[in-house]
Amino acid sequence: MEVSWEHSVTDSINTIYLLFSAYLVFVMQLGFAMLCAGSVRAKNAMNIMLTNVVDAVVGSISYYLFGFAFAFGDGSSSNPFIGTTFFALKDIPSTSYDYSFFLYQWAFAIAVAGITSGSIAERTQFSAYLVFSFFLSGFVYPIVAHWVWSSSGWLSPSSSDLLFGSGAIDFAGSGVVHLVGAIAGFWGSFIEGPRVGRFDAFGKPVPMRGHNATLVVLGTFLLWFGWFGFNPGSFDKILVAYPNTTDQGNWTSVGRTAVTTTLAGSAAGIATLFGRRFLVGHWDALDVCNGVLGGFVAITSGCSVVEPWAAIVCGFFAAFVLIGLNILALKLNFDDPLEATQLHGGCGAWGLIFTGLFAKEEFVIQVYNSGESSVVRPYGLMMGGGWGLIGAQVIEILVILSWVTVTMGPLFYALHKLQVLRIPVEEEITGLDISSHGGHAYVGHPAEDNHPRFYADYMRMQDNNGD
Amino acid sequence: MEVSWEHSVTDSINTIYLLFSAYLVFVMQLGFAMLCAGSVRAKNAMNIMLTNVVDAVVGSISYYLFGFAFAFGDGSSSNPFIGTTFFALKDIPSTSYDYSFFLYQWAFAIAVAGITSGSIAERTQFSAYLVFSFFLSGFVYPIVAHWVWSSSGWLSPSSSDLLFGSGAIDFAGSGVVHLVGAIAGFWGSFIEGPRVGRFDAFGKPVPMRGHNATLVVLGTFLLWFGWFGFNPGSFDKILVAYPNTTDQGNWTSVGRTAVTTTLAGSAAGIATLFGRRFLVGHWDALDVCNGVLGGFVAITSGCSVVEPWAAIVCGFFAAFVLIGLNILALKLNFDDPLEATQLHGGCGAWGLIFTGLFAKEEFVIQVYNSGESSVVRPYGLMMGGGWGLIGAQVIEILVILSWVTVTMGPLFYALHKLQVLRIPVEEEITGLDISSHGGHAYVGHPAEDNHPRFYADYMRMQDNNGD
Amino acid sequence: MEVSWEHSVTDSINTIYLLFSAYLVFVMQLGFAMLCAGSVRAKNAMNIMLTNVVDAVVGSISYYLFGFAFAFGDGSSSNPFIGTTFFALKDIPSTSYDYSFFLYQWAFAIAVAGITSGSIAERTQFSAYLVFSFFLSGFVYPIVAHWVWSSSGWLSPSSSDLLFGSGAIDFAGSGVVHLVGAIAGFWGSFIEGPRVGRFDAFGKPVPMRGHNATLVVLGTFLLWFGWFGFNPGSFDKILVAYPNTTDQGNWTSVGRTAVTTTLAGSAAGIATLFGRRFLVGHWDALDVCNGVLGGFVAITSGCSVVEPWAAIVCGFFAAFVLIGLNILALKLNFDDPLEATQLHGGCGAWGLIFTGLFAKEEFVIQVYNSGESSVVRPYGLMMGGGWGLIGAQVIEILVILSWVTVTMGPLFYALHKLQVLRIPVEEEITGLDISSHGGHAYVGHPAEDNHPRFYADYMRMQDNNGD
Repeated sequence: MEVSWEHSVTDSINTIYLLFSAYLVFVMQLGFAMLCAGSVRAKNAMNIMLTNVVDAVVGSISYYLFGFAFAFGDGSSSNPFIGTTFFALKDIPSTSYDYSFFLYQWAFAIAVAGITSGSIAERTQFSAYLVFSFFLSGFVYPIVAHWVWSSSGWLSPSSSDLLFGSGAIDFAGSGVVHLVGAIAGFWGSFIEGPRVGRFDAFGKPVPMRGHNATLVVLGTFLLWFGWFGFNPGSFDKILVAYPNTTDQGNWTSVGRTAVTTTLAGSAAGIATLFGRRFLVGHWDALDVCNGVLGGFVAITSGCSVVEPWAAIVCGFFAAFVLIGLNILALKLNFDDPLEATQLHGGCGAWGLIFTGLFAKEEFVIQVYNSGESSVVRPYGLMMGGGWGLIGAQVIEILVILSWVTVTMGPLFYALHKLQVLRIPVEEEITGLDISSHGGHAYVGHPAEDNHPRFYADYMRMQDNNGD
Repeated sequence: MEVSWEHSVTDSINTIYLLFSAYLVFVMQLGFAMLCAGSVRAKNAMNIMLTNVVDAVVGSISYYLFGFAFAFGDGSSSNPFIGTTFFALKDIPSTSYDYSFFLYQWAFAIAVAGITSGSIAERTQFSAYLVFSFFLSGFVYPIVAHWVWSSSGWLSPSSSDLLFGSGAIDFAGSGVVHLVGAIAGFWGSFIEGPRVGRFDAFGKPVPMRGHNATLVVLGTFLLWFGWFGFNPGSFDKILVAYPNTTDQGNWTSVGRTAVTTTLAGSAAGIATLFGRRFLVGHWDALDVCNGVLGGFVAITSGCSVVEPWAAIVCGFFAAFVLIGLNILALKLNFDDPLEATQLHGGCGAWGLIFTGLFAKEEFVIQVYNSGESSVVRPYGLMMGGGWGLIGAQVIEILVILSWVTVTMGPLFYALHKLQVLRIPVEEEITGLDISSHGGHAYVGHPAEDNHPRFYADYMRMQDNNGD
Repeated sequence: MEVSWEHSVTDSINTIYLLFSAYLVFVMQLGFAMLCAGSVRAKNAMNIMLTNVVDAVVGSISYYLFGFAFAFGDGSSSNPFIGTTFFALKDIPSTSYDYSFFLYQWAFAIAVAGITSGSIAERTQFSAYLVFSFFLSGFVYPIVAHWVWSSSGWLSPSSSDLLFGSGAIDFAGSGVVHLVGAIAGFWGSFIEGPRVGRFDAFGKPVPMRGHNATLVVLGTFLLWFGWFGFNPGSFDKILVAYPNTTDQGNWTSVGRTAVTTTLAGSAAGIATLFGRRFLVGHWDALDVCNGVLGGFVAITSGCSVVEPWAAIVCGFFAAFVLIGLNILALKLNFDDPLEATQLHGGCGAWGLIFTGLFAKEEFVIQVYNSGESSVVRPYGLMMGGGWGLIGAQVIEILVILSWVTVTMGPLFYALHKLQVLRIPVEEEITGLDISSHGGHAYVGHPAEDNHPRFYADYMRMQDNNGD
């Protein structure tokens, strides 16, 4: 019994690829923390950063204990709705999954609650946050991941019984991650209502700027960096050769995925730059940041199966989906401090549709059938691939809307009714950092530190000690 | 027709290497953004961060459409001056280039405009920035990249017809990237003139400190991190064995390149620490940061072909090049807010000369002839390698000076004459963020958020709604 | 004479793995810089960031010249106490070590002084810092690294003459790195005494909050990211197959190590969150950050040889070690501004003990004997592995305490007696940035830049020039 040379090389290469991708996805947690911190008022900065740290640490334990099992615990008796093995990593490494796969999926799981944290920022009780974060990343999200990403999932494009002969193509999770996080955030934000002072007595929005644009830009670039792990990394394995070619394999598709990701975000950024310039009259860095992120969210579903030119189309429209939904949110007096519902929800849903329209046959077969050219399966409607794929994409949107609504909606509503969801209005005005976290994130200007009192105290101590 | 196992393994390994290096180079864009933001006054922070984001998103589209084609579009009829194929990634993946190579080169292209953005900071109209950034990263830079890095380029050390039997060795771009960006910045900054108040009526410099040293340190470390992708990553492939050795290949040279890079930056940092201590009387963190970066810029040309001890020499002198040019700039009333001309231009040019002096024969043959020991070619003058290499290095400096001057000089001059280059003096005093970007990057102290008005409004709303 | 295909593939894969891990470890230097900056008062931010930059640049040169030689210079006549070859990288690449290994070890070396910098923050003369940093990372640390990590070291678990038949298992350096840095910091901090005003005349602690919690969170996440290089990266090679398995090798252990690291940090974070909530009554983000780091420090020793569930145990207790030592430090009027002594020292020592208790036989043999199942060696006491391992672990703690005390103690004391260690009290009150580094890290509010004087000057210049 011995590991073959080929096996060793293959496993080493694929493990390096997946682990370093996981590390990049983890950087997104830092990106979210900085983006969120910069987008809220200084008095709540500590609170929202703590939620991002807590997503990571609570998510580690819950995903280890049961989240991973719900998502990928296929075992011998596969279940299309929920996984049932691998609790607490029992039987890992298995023939299907090694530790590196768990780590990669963990980094995804903790991102979901991070999205939602933005929607309910600046007004949510921390203990309520703990409850919802645990429930969302430990149960609600893993179930959806099972449906779409586990080979036994009923919506999976790799299952033996493909929905509409196709299954939904949500390669890195425009729906599974972003739409899920956004719908959860929508219900939280809707039930809590807008922040104090966000809309005046006549329903007119009052600008409530984040306290630090540098952090927003820092967060955006870190998220971009992390997305290179999120999208190309979702191949899991890079050493997979395609038959009927002389030099192509997953290594080609991985590079293409990094390129489509970059182009979609960039196109969305440019469209936002000029679109917002036209609408509001100035060049707004923060809008561009959100636009770029909207482009990334949208391409996340189809990044591996579309041509680079299509990625530009994807990003271009994503920008206007976001701009439009932001206008609508203001009109409806819906207050999501990070625009997370609009961005991750709107662009996430658009991304699923987009994939149904523009997925290319050759690439779909490469990604989901390792390039077996004899395979026939639906692909993008605009590319002549029929209605099977886009049908499955629409189904994915609808079931995510429903599932997250029936789970997270009642949870938020119960917390609301128990009066443990939203902080009292006085605390909101003072800021969460003072009321719940022991103090502000920032301590004044250098000059303020030079307390003469300290000096006097010190001198007195010296005298007393006779040192 | 099938991909061989050897081919699959080789491509997978090299793709991982190149893609993750590309991701690191991309981090430099974030590094630039933070470095620039921290080095300007708070009132212009948003503006300069937006320029860094815009470099990335505009550069993606322009490099995809034509920049990459100009640089590497060799096709069958190779042209030593400009590439002519691969527009919009047509025919990619080709036998020479995969998507990962495009992504790596894209990350380089967007860095060039980032360098220039520092030189013209705090006083440039944003629309002028858009024009120059598009032209520089889409046309001016790719042409130089073609000359030096494409195998059909007339200055290339890998071409079939080597200039002076050598070609210029600019491994990762002290000249192609840094000198190009710096000369562009020089003309922009020279034509715009100094910032209001930078020199008093008698030409004496008035200190104009950046607003946040933490961001400068953050940016410097991120650039260092990114340089590990920039320099070692420029091998493109790591799995290349050298003949006539038992255990060496590009994997050895890649590690050596990371070491020379580190040592050069460190030597420059130490020299700057003590040099500036001697000159100004205190230990200046910001000077050290710029010194480290100067060392990196200098070693970028020769990083793969010099011994570690030589890298220390390189960095040591780079520090004094930078210190000297900064003193000169003040004397000449030349105002480059990021010292970008001095740093990327001065140290970039020194780096090209240094390579001509210290390149080691064995390493040159490893890097440019895959270690074929029968090859004879010029190397460093001080190492006994003759005048061929240093001659080519000087030619590279001269043609970059000329090419960037005849392209960017007229562009900046035309923008200046059309009065769309510099912002009006009142706007400069108020700050670009207010005049062009909708507000400051920072919103006051936590305490300032506690507007009683909001509370009153809220209470009134509650009453009206009868909630 | 030719490099075989197997050799080329193996070296390429292992070099990628080790180099990118080294880059991640380097990010920890940035993480430290941000964590430290945020944890001190604004008036000393520049000082502490400069110390972190200086650790890196001075460490590069000293580790190149002799540090690496002391640690890994085994040569033909191996010495269990100090290495004696490879000065200035002579004979590198050797059959044992390539450049990439040097780079990886360099990134470790510079981290040690970074730990200590926190303990002596806000009151140490910069020139004293230069002396101690050079001595610590160039001599004191490399010696310990030689003992434990070099195959000829007397404490090494890979030596031919194992202490207690076992050697100490300090896989990534809970002791070698963290405890060493902490003990050095303890002596520095103890000899310098508390910061002015830290304790009042009655010995009661006066809160002295860091100036920027955002930087603390940023630093913590960056350290987490870097720890993925620190712990899993310490395998050095990923392509090592285990005999008597069908599919396992270092690639499996590497993933497991990433998982144990994550779980330990997370468990410690959660325990701290609730523990501190119980003790102080609020949810403290900064405490949670330090708790997470404490968990990482503790698991660093045993990360590769324990089960995931044991990692949770490790982190859980690490949290209380840290909480307890922090309470003790306050009672003893010991002032370590970053809690570095408590965190890196306390959790580091606990980590060594923990490994002696919970190391699993199978994993110890995988990691230290490449899975040779015929090997018999001690492992964790609680796992039935006898007293050999835990004995060696205790010895490691004791010799580190002694060695660092007899080297760093006298150094700090001598600097103290020469009155070059601590800054004068007036300077401490004003802040190091003003007294030693030329100015504050931060320049006021945007509005403050709009000096009318500049405008007047400018207008006068315009008049004079007749432009």
